[in-house]
Formats: sequence, C-alpha cells, structure tokens
Amino acid sequence: MGSPGDVLTLISAGSATTRSDLARLTGLARSTVSQRVDALIDCGLVEETTGGESTGGRPPRQLRLRTEDHTIAAVDLGATHCRVALTDLGGTTVATAEDQLQIAEGPQAVLTHVKKRVDELLGERTLTAIGIGVPGPVEFAAGRPNNPPIMPGWNDYPVPAFFPDVPVLVDNDVNLMALGEHRHAFPGTRHLLFVKVGTGIGCGIVAEGRLHRGAQGSAGDIGHIRVSGHEEAGCRCGNSACLEAVAGGAALARALGVESGAEVVALVQQGDVQALRAVREAGRLIGEVLAGLVNFFNPEVVVVGGLLSRVHDHLLAGIRETVYRRSLPLATQHLTIVPSRAGVDAAAWGAGILAREHYLSPDNINRLVSACEDV
Amino acid sequence: MGSPGDVLTLISAGSATTRSDLARLTGLARSTVSQRVDALIDCGLVEETTGGESTGGRPPRQLRLRTEDHTIAAVDLGATHCRVALTDLGGTTVATAEDQLQIAEGPQAVLTHVKKRVDELLGERTLTAIGIGVPGPVEFAAGRPNNPPIMPGWNDYPVPAFFPDVPVLVDNDVNLMALGEHRHAFPGTRHLLFVKVGTGIGCGIVAEGRLHRGAQGSAGDIGHIRVSGHEEAGCRCGNSACLEAVAGGAALARALGVESGAEVVALVQQGDVQALRAVREAGRLIGEVLAGLVNFFNPEVVVVGGLLSRVHDHLLAGIRETVYRRSLPLATQHLTIVPSRAGVDAAAWGAGILAREHYLSPDNINRLVSACEDV
Repeated sequence: MGSPGDVLTLISAGSATTRSDLARLTGLARSTVSQRVDALIDCGLVEETTGGESTGGRPPRQLRLRTEDHTIAAVDLGATHCRVALTDLGGTTVATAEDQLQIAEGPQAVLTHVKKRVDELLGERTLTAIGIGVPGPVEFAAGRPNNPPIMPGWNDYPVPAFFPDVPVLVDNDVNLMALGEHRHAFPGTRHLLFVKVGTGIGCGIVAEGRLHRGAQGSAGDIGHIRVSGHEEAGCRCGNSACLEAVAGGAALARALGVESGAEVVALVQQGDVQALRAVREAGRLIGEVLAGLVNFFNPEVVVVGGLLSRVHDHLLAGIRETVYRRSLPLATQHLTIVPSRAGVDAAAWGAGILAREHYLSPDNINRLVSACEDV
Repeated sequence: MGSPGDVLTLISAGSATTRSDLARLTGLARSTVSQRVDALIDCGLVEETTGGESTGGRPPRQLRLRTEDHTIAAVDLGATHCRVALTDLGGTTVATAEDQLQIAEGPQAVLTHVKKRVDELLGERTLTAIGIGVPGPVEFAAGRPNNPPIMPGWNDYPVPAFFPDVPVLVDNDVNLMALGEHRHAFPGTRHLLFVKVGTGIGCGIVAEGRLHRGAQGSAGDIGHIRVSGHEEAGCRCGNSACLEAVAGGAALARALGVESGAEVVALVQQGDVQALRAVREAGRLIGEVLAGLVNFFNPEVVVVGGLLSRVHDHLLAGIRETVYRRSLPLATQHLTIVPSRAGVDAAAWGAGILAREHYLSPDNINRLVSACEDV
C-alpha cells in the first residue's frame, strides 16, 4: 500500500497527474509522496513537467509515465513463422518484422534469430521487457515449454535465460491470443474464451479479466475432449474421438484428400460443397464441446480465431447452432460468439500486453526502484 | 491504498499488531495511521489493549479485531432442510440449528422461518452479516435466484430485502460448498473444482482462490453436459444424454427401481451388486465430463461431495478411472481427486465464509467507517 509501484499505477492510469493528486488518493504524507515520486523520476520511469492549468499561482507540475523511453518486444512464434513487434510502454507499435522460421529447429537456432531481429529493430532504443508466445504448453512462472508436441528440443528449455538482461514472459500462443483479443476488442468483459481452430484446436481463458492458466499451465487444452459418435477416429494423443481428431484443420484436410488446413480454407473459398459441409460439421463438433464449456464457465464472449476462422461464416454457423441447442438458456441469453477481430496479430498483441502489464505491475516497479536506489 | 479497510486487513490478518507496525507496513504518516485506527476503534471494529513485550519503556498497545462482538449467520437452504450456524468474525461457531423445511414453500414462508431461527440463536448478540446458500442459480450481485428449477416462487425474489439491516450475501449452494471446502481443507491450492453428486449434478469453481460465478452466475452447471452413447436418456431440461439424466441420484434410483438417491446409497451400503455397478458406471460418466473439464480448467484438486459421495469408494473409482484415461497427462500429473472433507457442513461453512469475507473486505469497512463518522 502506498509503495512506489502503487504510485506509478495511479500515474500510468491517468488517475493522478500531480503530487497533490497522489497525496489525496493515497492518504500518504506529502513527504512520502515526494520520496516516491523522486525515486520514480530517478529511475527514469516518470517525468515531471511544468504546464497544466494555473489556479492563480504557479501552475502545478504534471507527472507522466515516460512511455517512449521504454521499448517492449512482442514475439509470436508459430510452427513456421516468427513475428516481432516493438511497442512503447503505452502500447504504440514502433516497428515490426515477420519471417518464415521453423520452430522445430530448436531453441538455440530460433532464439538466436529472435535476438538478432529484436536487436535490428531496436536500433538506439532501450529494451525493457520481452513477451514471447510459443505453440505449446508452458510452465509460465519459469518460462519453460512443457512437453510441447510440435516443438522438438524445447521441452523444459529455460527461455528467459537466453535474454538475461530484461524480464522475459513466455506463454502459450493461444493464451496470448485470448489476452490480445480481450484487451483490444472486449476490454469491458470479465469472462472470455478464445478458441483457436488451426491444425489443432486450443482455447485461451480470461476469467475476471485475467488469464486463467491452471495448475500446470495447461488450461484450455480442449483439443482432446471427447466428442460423441466418433469412436473410429484415432488421435495422436493415443485416445480416440478427440475433438481435434475430427474437427481440426489436419483432420479436415485428411478427410477432403488435401494436404493442409490452408487448402481446406481455399476449397471453401472456391465454393466446394464437400469442403463447406466438412467445415460446417466441424463447427457443430466444436460447438458440442463449447456447449459444455459454456455451461461450466459461463463466459460473456466466445471468440473464434485461427486458420479455419478465415471461413468463419460456415464454422461459426455450426458452432452457434450446437451451442444454442445444447447449452442452458441462462448461460446463452447474453452470450456473444464472434470471429476474431485481431486476426493474425492476436498473439503478438497478447505478448506485448503480457510484457507491459508485467513491467508496470507494482511488484516489478518496487523491485526496479529499490535496485535503482541501491546503486 | 492506506484506507481504513486496508489497515483493518493488516490487523485482522495478524500482519500488524501495533500502530508502529501499521506505519511501517503502509508508509502512511503516523498521524494518518492514528486517524485510521481511531476511526476503526470508534466503529467498534478494533480494540487497543496494553500488553505485549516491553522493549524497555512503556509496552506498546496491541491492536486486535473485535471478533466476538460481531456475529455472522450462515444459512444453508436445501430442497428439504434449513441449517443455520452463527459464527464470530474469526469463524468460530457459537450456535447451530437444523430443521426440515421445504424450499418449495416459497420465499416468504422459508425466509420467515430463517429469520425466526436466526433471532432465537442470536439472543443478545449483534448480527453483522448473513450468508445464504440456495439450491439453484443466483444472480449474485442482486441476491436474486435466477429461474431455479426446484424453487417455485423464488425466481427473481430479492432475498436481501428480507433482512434490511445487514449485508446479505446469497449464492448457489454448490458454489458455497466449493468455497467452504477450499478455505477449510485446501487453503493452499489455487484452482479447485467441487462436484456435488446428489439428485442432480453440479459443480463449484474456485479459480485463483476466488469463486468463479461466470457472467450470469450460472458457472458450474455441468449436469446438462452431453455424455456419449446415451441418446435414449431424455432429460428434464428438454435435451437428451445429459450427465444428470444418466448419472444423477434420481436417474440411478429410477434405473434401480427405488424412490430416491438415499435408497441407492442404502443399497450400495448393503452390498447390492446391481446398485454398486450402477454407481461405478455413474462415476465413469461423471469422469467423462470431468476429464474434459480437467483439460479445460487444469485444477489442482477435484472434490466430490453430495449424497452419492457417501458411497465414494465406488463413485470415485469410476471417476478416477475415466479422468486418468481421458485427460491429458500434463493436466493429471499432480491432480488430486478426493471425497469431500466438510460433508454436510460444506454449504454452511461456505455461507459463513462468504459473509465474513464480504464484511471484512476493504470496501465494506470503508463504507462502515464513513457511515460511522457521519453520525
């Protein structure tokens, strides 16, 4: 209470713009407010400028976060791509890059590439924190991928150690998509599910405005929930009738005799009736699983993203049909089911938000201030 | 920050026992600490006594919450019972009562009974807050039951208005069981599911230590999630193959040709092989739904309670078998699936905790203090 981090929260939210505001809002003694503000200024987090409306005497000095002096790197690693975006502490994008990159090349090769790209984009700017999304489960507190099926060589690899000078936040890409979608498109909602329908199927969960990662960080792994009437469909996980094994992009491609989910999307866009029916039926199966999750979790919004959502008319029709048929009326009366608004940027957005919110959290600011005072 | 409510939190948690502790922990000016403490004393929330270890001079005065001057009423309303427990602000039970009572008699009759019972138990004590659990969904913020299927006459009834003098917190009984079980038996865990297997089947969700109620307060309604291979089983909700329609106490009773879940329990306890098999199979079906929810939510603990958990050996065996077969290894590697420890007291415990935590929340304390200062 009343720590430098709490004071910074009030300044960065715009709730306090002067030392008087801070004294009033916190109940801290004026001398304590001055100590806190001076420490934040000394650390380069806050600046104080003259200006503001005069009330007769000297105009009060204004406090503001030095957003542009701090740069966040947001990194979205997919199976075959690497997107990097730099933003300032206010979330404004200052540079971006996108490359083809195989995550299966392993952490050394991939992170060396990421580091090089971030350094190039940075130029003279100072790096403040990095957020990284990866296509697999992550032990969030340690930043270590946890038996990720499509990331050979990454299991238990300590990603943050690769960037020793700044805080590094690593999370599953679907979690970051949920976070990005929530903060950008649905900031007023409390409970949101983001369903990614790509080669596989996953879900990110926002509960009370915060990511729900679960005990092992594996929350949202809905691709292996059983659907009824498909016992014949074996899944790569060793079970059968998993959602992903019948409704994921890879399963649809197999059923339609093409190579990839992207080709399924192309067929639907060409008006191929068989592909269209397959996507609609995949929507129904995803809807069957979501119907149960809507009863259980009672979200306000379900956002559908990922490759297959490019043909969302057909996918969402199937999902909505089943959710509205199988979920309880109380849980669906105000439920919104919509396609992703962030599209391909969702994971990078989320990675940047994760890193910014961590950097500006009171605990981190207090650590920075006390490290700064010790020098 | 540094409000009277924040100060009370430090005192009631035992983090601060003197004014000096408070000044150190909050960074507040001594004069502000004194203002806050005096206000809390004036409101009768805190007392200051001499004692404590002397450090040479005058022994510092000790601050403590006046737990015994405030009484919480915890009310557990079931389909056919009413339990009332009074506790002090520290959670110590001071009186209890239990009656047969039909919730279907409607809110006037039931709440009149509750009020009478609470008044009798109170005697000379002062009532501070009431927590009430009901067997149906509740719009929590308003304290109104929301289309509860087994509570005729209660839909949208404003329960708090019946007790105009104190804060009244109303919640679904399964939510309260989850809260009671979490705070008493698993306080160190972050994510817990409580599954009640009674006549119907429901679930309470604790996420990051807090109840997750969802957008409409209907989260945890898992009784109508579809299970595979039971399309023939019609459900009272209008759909078929709902979990409750094949694995709830009422469904088991019907299948075994007896009247109630209690008789099913009795048959199992007598060693009836058919009943035993039915309960084991019900466990497997509940396990099928839970397997999906464990993948989705990744809890640390699943607690199984309700009437059928009295024969938990057989029920849990079926649940565990299916969860460990169908959930992802990452989500089950540290998962614990256990019978309820609170038993029949779980809902009343939860109701008391809900009311106490509300009463002691900084926002409520700040309201009380400012009301007190206005007099």
